[in-house]
Amino acid sequence: MTVTLAHGAGGRSMRRLVTDVFAASFDPSPHAEVGLAALDDGAVLRIGEHHLVVTTDAHVVAPAFFPGGDIGRLAICGTVNDLAVMGATAPLGITSAIIVEEGYPLADLERIRTSMVQACREAHTTVVAGDTKVMGRGEVDGIVITTTGFGLARRVITDCGLHPGDVIIVTGFIADHGLAVMAQRHKLAFEVPPQSDVAPINHLIEKVLHVALDDVTAMKDPTRGGVASALHEMAEKSNVGIVLDELSLPVTPAARAVSELLGIDPLYVANEGKALIGVAPAAARRVIEALRSTHQGCDAAIIGRCVDEHHGMIVVETGFGRRLLAEPEGELLPRIC
Amino acid sequence: MTVTLAHGAGGRSMRRLVTDVFAASFDPSPHAEVGLAALDDGAVLRIGEHHLVVTTDAHVVAPAFFPGGDIGRLAICGTVNDLAVMGATAPLGITSAIIVEEGYPLADLERIRTSMVQACREAHTTVVAGDTKVMGRGEVDGIVITTTGFGLARRVITDCGLHPGDVIIVTGFIADHGLAVMAQRHKLAFEVPPQSDVAPINHLIEKVLHVALDDVTAMKDPTRGGVASALHEMAEKSNVGIVLDELSLPVTPAARAVSELLGIDPLYVANEGKALIGVAPAAARRVIEALRSTHQGCDAAIIGRCVDEHHGMIVVETGFGRRLLAEPEGELLPRIC
Repeated sequence: MTVTLAHGAGGRSMRRLVTDVFAASFDPSPHAEVGLAALDDGAVLRIGEHHLVVTTDAHVVAPAFFPGGDIGRLAICGTVNDLAVMGATAPLGITSAIIVEEGYPLADLERIRTSMVQACREAHTTVVAGDTKVMGRGEVDGIVITTTGFGLARRVITDCGLHPGDVIIVTGFIADHGLAVMAQRHKLAFEVPPQSDVAPINHLIEKVLHVALDDVTAMKDPTRGGVASALHEMAEKSNVGIVLDELSLPVTPAARAVSELLGIDPLYVANEGKALIGVAPAAARRVIEALRSTHQGCDAAIIGRCVDEHHGMIVVETGFGRRLLAEPEGELLPRIC
Repeated sequence: MTVTLAHGAGGRSMRRLVTDVFAASFDPSPHAEVGLAALDDGAVLRIGEHHLVVTTDAHVVAPAFFPGGDIGRLAICGTVNDLAVMGATAPLGITSAIIVEEGYPLADLERIRTSMVQACREAHTTVVAGDTKVMGRGEVDGIVITTTGFGLARRVITDCGLHPGDVIIVTGFIADHGLAVMAQRHKLAFEVPPQSDVAPINHLIEKVLHVALDDVTAMKDPTRGGVASALHEMAEKSNVGIVLDELSLPVTPAARAVSELLGIDPLYVANEGKALIGVAPAAARRVIEALRSTHQGCDAAIIGRCVDEHHGMIVVETGFGRRLLAEPEGELLPRIC
């Protein structure tokens, strides 16, 4: 048995690998309010009265530079957003471990570093510790960056708190990141080329928590595996079903065109500046209004609702009928983030 | 200009790369008591009354399995020890981001995971969050593991607090890790093959802090670049000179033989289960006794003292005279940790 690319693609195979090989093996932590076994976007550790959220991600995106961003911006935003969806919207700091291939142009490294600095400024945080390793030619493909973030949450939000009746909100247009990387990777030329949405959304999430701290029941950022994978995880862990309204999904005409050309459902494509938010129905309008009052959230939409049937499954209302949304199994887009 | 292997070898070239490209660019953190610019083993962030130490390291050691340990044990111990030398001897938790090559044997991945679990148990901590990425064949050489650790320090200890008169203690035999990896890499056969010293030393450090919390002036673990590189960094940052007594350096006869054969000074070879401790002279005996009362510290020795001359330099008393110990410049052993 060997590791396959499917194990890294963010779908069911990866969840099995992570669960079977890792999560079940490590001892539970006496400090953890949310630990490894929860397989959430991060862990939560108790420090006195404080809830410390910690999250880590290895970023291997190829190519490292793509329309709308680069691996440096992606690393910072990915980590900031993982903290934010767990309720830590003001990161205390980020650590960055960079592995770079011998012969890598210093100018590219500096360009990536500058993107990291810029993304940190947008998120009101900074890199506080780091490590640099150099591997020989052919031992690593260019550059990989692992970022770990930590921040305090007033209230810890998980990805497993959905209740039947809750409304599912997405904070804006979906699929742009994955399509941008894919178009770049395959050198596809479009009149309106897709641009990655990679951005820190911690301030946006803070707006939501400001108006609905106790009404947000679950959050997740739909990165690898896209909205489909994230919703499956949320539904399964929360033991609810989710009915998705396909016509309400925010997808730009450009992204729609690109994904149709590539034969990919936008629901399976990675995002790097969006969140899925489950809220109690009474708070839905308040949350949508808070989101739409911002530049980043102006295209936010209610895309579905939770039901107390077909638990763990996602049903898509297409306008012409219903279909089951399969959980992505294996490789759709490797090295997407 | 491109990145070279020398940039990753733990010596002066690496410090320049890290300082010039990274440390100077990121904004300082309002939360940091010790931040990126300090280039210490980690950062320290203030949370209310607490001092949170965080540290990150990318582990790329090749081969991944070596006498005395493997990359999994190394990743956990490296992080535990970086926390410990900053005063956080009881880690709150560790995050682990693993990048693995397509086709990697699952059995090897599980063996590495088991080593991580075991090392965590020895250190009385655990992995609380993780990430797994798969890269294609030839995109990464086997496996790399980035670990980030979190812990609280009663008193924050840096690598820059040495005073003239302070005594330098090493907690045991040096050079074993680097020699073990090198012998394995080059398939050298020895009657007594060198074994890596990779181990968590947080309990050992706690013993020291228990008897001399206020008398420890600086600590560092001499990994990449060995004792020479670590002492240079400590001396330079503390603005003292260090006089090293070569005859008192604990080196096993086996390690001595291997390093002579390879033409390498043990002072430049990486350790993964040792600390350099600077202590006020009045506390030196107390610290040595505390160390020697333990299994891990039974070979601890006073190896030098700090002086108020030749600042930033290391002078070695050989028994026949004095020589300056050069700071390692470039590549000695790439991918050693």
